[in-house]
Amino acid sequence: MKKHNFSAGPCILPQSVLKKASDAVLNFNNLDLSLIEISHRSKDFVDVMENARALSLEHLGLQNKGYKALFLQGGASLEFLMVAYNLLEKKAAYLNTGTWSDKAIKEAKLMGEIDVVASSKEQNFNFIPKNYKIPADADYFHCTSNNTIFGTQMHKFPETAVPFICDMSSDIFSRQLDFSKFDLIYAGAQKNMGPAGTTLVIIKEEILGKVSRTIPSMLDYKVHLSKDSMFNTPAVFPIYVSMLTLQWLKDLGGVSEIEKVNNVKAALLYNEIDRNDLFKGFVTNAEDRSKMNATFTLTAENRKEAFDLMCKDAGINGLNGHRSVGGYRASMYNALPLESVQVLVDVMKELERKG
Amino acid sequence: MKKHNFSAGPCILPQSVLKKASDAVLNFNNLDLSLIEISHRSKDFVDVMENARALSLEHLGLQNKGYKALFLQGGASLEFLMVAYNLLEKKAAYLNTGTWSDKAIKEAKLMGEIDVVASSKEQNFNFIPKNYKIPADADYFHCTSNNTIFGTQMHKFPETAVPFICDMSSDIFSRQLDFSKFDLIYAGAQKNMGPAGTTLVIIKEEILGKVSRTIPSMLDYKVHLSKDSMFNTPAVFPIYVSMLTLQWLKDLGGVSEIEKVNNVKAALLYNEIDRNDLFKGFVTNAEDRSKMNATFTLTAENRKEAFDLMCKDAGINGLNGHRSVGGYRASMYNALPLESVQVLVDVMKELERKG
Repeated sequence: MKKHNFSAGPCILPQSVLKKASDAVLNFNNLDLSLIEISHRSKDFVDVMENARALSLEHLGLQNKGYKALFLQGGASLEFLMVAYNLLEKKAAYLNTGTWSDKAIKEAKLMGEIDVVASSKEQNFNFIPKNYKIPADADYFHCTSNNTIFGTQMHKFPETAVPFICDMSSDIFSRQLDFSKFDLIYAGAQKNMGPAGTTLVIIKEEILGKVSRTIPSMLDYKVHLSKDSMFNTPAVFPIYVSMLTLQWLKDLGGVSEIEKVNNVKAALLYNEIDRNDLFKGFVTNAEDRSKMNATFTLTAENRKEAFDLMCKDAGINGLNGHRSVGGYRASMYNALPLESVQVLVDVMKELERKG
Repeated sequence: MKKHNFSAGPCILPQSVLKKASDAVLNFNNLDLSLIEISHRSKDFVDVMENARALSLEHLGLQNKGYKALFLQGGASLEFLMVAYNLLEKKAAYLNTGTWSDKAIKEAKLMGEIDVVASSKEQNFNFIPKNYKIPADADYFHCTSNNTIFGTQMHKFPETAVPFICDMSSDIFSRQLDFSKFDLIYAGAQKNMGPAGTTLVIIKEEILGKVSRTIPSMLDYKVHLSKDSMFNTPAVFPIYVSMLTLQWLKDLGGVSEIEKVNNVKAALLYNEIDRNDLFKGFVTNAEDRSKMNATFTLTAENRKEAFDLMCKDAGINGLNGHRSVGGYRASMYNALPLESVQVLVDVMKELERKG
């Protein structure tokens, strides 16, 4: 049965990528060996790593601008710590827009003073704060571009004179931005890039080397950069699948092309949420709505059983909201076809029609 | 062409495991979804994680003895740091038997005083030191059970009153030991367990919580234990393949059965190295030889071209020695069939016959 996979992450990946990944587990590059049983130092895998790093920079327009890409382990959660370990000498500025910002702040506090410049925590993160001031003496400013759990997204970014760090785990490669505004971007792979188990980190090298503490090797970006992201054995399979997905995106026309599709998908679903009286969006300011994760609830709780059953019958998967928000969450990452959103919208209309 | 894969890691995995892993990338548990596109919180994946954790303890005979298993990211290299972060208050004792011990010592020094109780570093690690004393006031004792690069292995372990930590990355699940001697065992998956990208950590819980420093969340074993190894998104695919490999080992009869095969493979190859005048083992004390990684060189360098070509023609892969040792290294992990060792030995004999 054809499934429509709205999972928040790990999430849907392109079918053509899954097919190539499955084949490579049996026989990679016609070596008569599996991808996962060859040396990570072999030319075949070094090529994978270098392609993945190059494609990441290319998609963001950051080639030849002083940036380098790394594929590390530990997820965005380890980056919360690494960012502070590598960059926080005295004080850093953080914008608190959701669970992941909150966790990033908690880890960074171990390394110095944290100035939370604005927060929507008291309103359960249902909007993106604006008009805050970033102190000029901060070592850096950190924000989360898309809040998977709450369904908000930053559509404008502040101007700042200090290094700009952004956790783009759930919307990287989904839209065009001037990525050269940012000095360090990180993203867990398991949304728009690949399977769980690797994290992309893109760093403007000039911001490193300015803290006085000794950094443990595995937490030190300079160590990983000096070894071309091969300081220790990398997560071979997740990186390979990420490379395939980045290549798929390139073949499709890149970020500018997928952004058009993402805009159409998001408009289709949000229009239905707004039109259909049985549904209500979670985010208070429509301008803060995420194009990756739409959060919504039923206005009449007694329709839940019927709606859930209809979704199931339609092959819809992964629509449950996160426990801190409740209701539903439709994640519409790059690999989700427009057709799947149409199926969901049709079910919403059908629920209304049934009265 | 059938390959005989002697790679040091990532390394050979059972063919039946590769087949199941390949299938799961397309359709996992008949969900009509890929293993790598479902939520890590779904019952289907939680079952994988719990099975992998349970099988790990079962293979080592450590169920119901106060131990728990974790599947973390970052490889053994991150464990070098985490062990010290979690357990080192003042002083720890380390045995230095190779490159990985050496790196573990380097990271631990950031957290306290390190007493290197013995080292074979000055002899390029070609033997395992014995008859050292472990100070009774050390917070713990750390050693590496098998040295992949140099081809040495600890066949006896010291008695010690302090917590006993062991990096078993390259020989875990290969032989029977009284594993309850150890208080913390860690192992990167990519030898006897699975693909690169996950690390097994087995901890006797009672040794935790005794250091005074604040431990960052991602480095804190107690945090990972409190979340059943799901504090953050785990490396889904590497853990799934590890679970399959642990199940394969169980179906085969477990560690005691694979140990018999490993003993036969090692004896076959070392007998030929010792018998054939064209070859010479790297390890000085035969009693310290590794049953996982046999390191050897040609006695006449002018035979290299012929030997390499014959190996290639026989489908032998991954036999190059590490640059710090040179020569050859035949890694004979659990999944390597006896047949592959026989093919290598036949090539060695054939080289001799050709004169």
